[in-house]
Amino acid sequence: MSKKTYETALVIGMGLIGSSIARVLKEKKISKKIFALDKNNEVVSISKNLKLVDKIENDLKKFKKQFDIIFICTPLSSYKNIFEELNSYITEKTLVTDVGSTKVSVIDDFKQTIDNNKILFVPAHPIAGLEKSGPEFGFAKLFENRYCILTPMDTSDELIKSISNIWKSFGMNIEIMEPKRHDRVLAMTSHIPQLIAYSVVGTATELETQMKDEVIKYSAAGFRDFTRLAGSDPIMWRDVYEKNKEAVLEMLGRFSEDLLTYQKAIRNNDLKYLEEKFIKSKEIRKIIEDIGQAGRFDPTEKN
Amino acid sequence: MSKKTYETALVIGMGLIGSSIARVLKEKKISKKIFALDKNNEVVSISKNLKLVDKIENDLKKFKKQFDIIFICTPLSSYKNIFEELNSYITEKTLVTDVGSTKVSVIDDFKQTIDNNKILFVPAHPIAGLEKSGPEFGFAKLFENRYCILTPMDTSDELIKSISNIWKSFGMNIEIMEPKRHDRVLAMTSHIPQLIAYSVVGTATELETQMKDEVIKYSAAGFRDFTRLAGSDPIMWRDVYEKNKEAVLEMLGRFSEDLLTYQKAIRNNDLKYLEEKFIKSKEIRKIIEDIGQAGRFDPTEKN
Repeated sequence: MSKKTYETALVIGMGLIGSSIARVLKEKKISKKIFALDKNNEVVSISKNLKLVDKIENDLKKFKKQFDIIFICTPLSSYKNIFEELNSYITEKTLVTDVGSTKVSVIDDFKQTIDNNKILFVPAHPIAGLEKSGPEFGFAKLFENRYCILTPMDTSDELIKSISNIWKSFGMNIEIMEPKRHDRVLAMTSHIPQLIAYSVVGTATELETQMKDEVIKYSAAGFRDFTRLAGSDPIMWRDVYEKNKEAVLEMLGRFSEDLLTYQKAIRNNDLKYLEEKFIKSKEIRKIIEDIGQAGRFDPTEKN
Repeated sequence: MSKKTYETALVIGMGLIGSSIARVLKEKKISKKIFALDKNNEVVSISKNLKLVDKIENDLKKFKKQFDIIFICTPLSSYKNIFEELNSYITEKTLVTDVGSTKVSVIDDFKQTIDNNKILFVPAHPIAGLEKSGPEFGFAKLFENRYCILTPMDTSDELIKSISNIWKSFGMNIEIMEPKRHDRVLAMTSHIPQLIAYSVVGTATELETQMKDEVIKYSAAGFRDFTRLAGSDPIMWRDVYEKNKEAVLEMLGRFSEDLLTYQKAIRNNDLKYLEEKFIKSKEIRKIIEDIGQAGRFDPTEKN
């Protein structure tokens, strides 16, 4: 892989992922100049204080310049507006990619908005994240050894290769996938676990007050893992469930059916069923550890 | 708190928790001699290789000695047998405590089996753990800054204080609770999250083969947190659902109802409902971090 250096990059949306991209672009010297756009003035000011980019603005027009490559890293509900702005702003050939958690909706938004052939877009989804949101939590290593799924539209191989190489240069492994398949797979690996985490935390917090306090106090018992997921950015997730409604509802249906079989097994004291299922799950965990996608959990606290 | 040193301690069951207790007893010099009992020969041999205790046997009778303090750290289905063995074996006053995840069933088993007034038992549940099982994964710091819930039967304050002080000396914060209440709280903070994690992993693994492979591959997206829980000891968990059936079924009912409201909100595009719920969940996470019960997650891999 030949590593290419770009003159200018623009990151739109300086949250956890956007700011991590800004950091990796700088650390690995992938772009000489790094710019950022964010509508949120607090994010702008934190990014300035941390000197994450060469310049950050809250309005695209203020830049008065073109970019070699643009990363869209905002919640999915902002895409249409962003595409509209880019559609009228871009006058030179520009690589564009994104980090959105759903891909069918992103492609729909693109097709409905963009008629500017200078915009060379390959949708992407880097499977990397953390429950924290905001530019202060980003870090360059976030992408290392993680997968990045590209769901290219009908574009040239050369374009796909260019975008692919950028994500590769972050340390990611690239996979190409149909957008519909992406949305189903991610419904299962990401959107359903997240929804269930929200739901468990919701259930716990609706218990009578004293019990709720105890649930929080003794959360180290497994509940805390759910709250970690549930600590993620609410707007980002709200948008995911809107944009990937069909696949989420399908997988949720499957999950609910399966949960009922566990419930029935508990009610009927079918310990053999439970044991077999639990052993199978343990095997899956082992595979995930073996392929190096498990992360690390440290049950102690920072001092 | 006056730290007392014991002459001899016996750990029954050298899994993650039992072996962590053996380590902390040694490290903090709480007992001069530390013995262990485990029916599993592999566990016996690992414990010997790691020199975790002064002596380990697979049969209580082989020790031919009495102990000052005994820790029961086995799956709940073994308690009755263990109590029976202790009932006939113990001839001198012995402090006994345990680590079982349910407390009503433990007290029932005790009352049905023990008529030996030398056995001074205070049921306990240290809220600390990890998804790993086996003596090789234990570590002394596991208990630090975690809660230990005691559910004493009708015993003397002096006894409760003695057992309490032992757990305190591990670095734990002690709470006294009614056994029934313990079982309900833990159903919510531990047994339900765990069951749901199993269920999500189960659903994912029953998808068509290609999709299943992809779910594993892209597990870094949230699913991996569920697999981490699902990597726990199957037998231990099977027993929990048998022993805490009523509370688990109650909380599962509540959870299922709540999940349906999310499902309905997604189907009806009720984004406001989702957003409000997600924001509330984020606040709960914040509290858990603030009280220092959140642990630490590192999304990178070990080298």
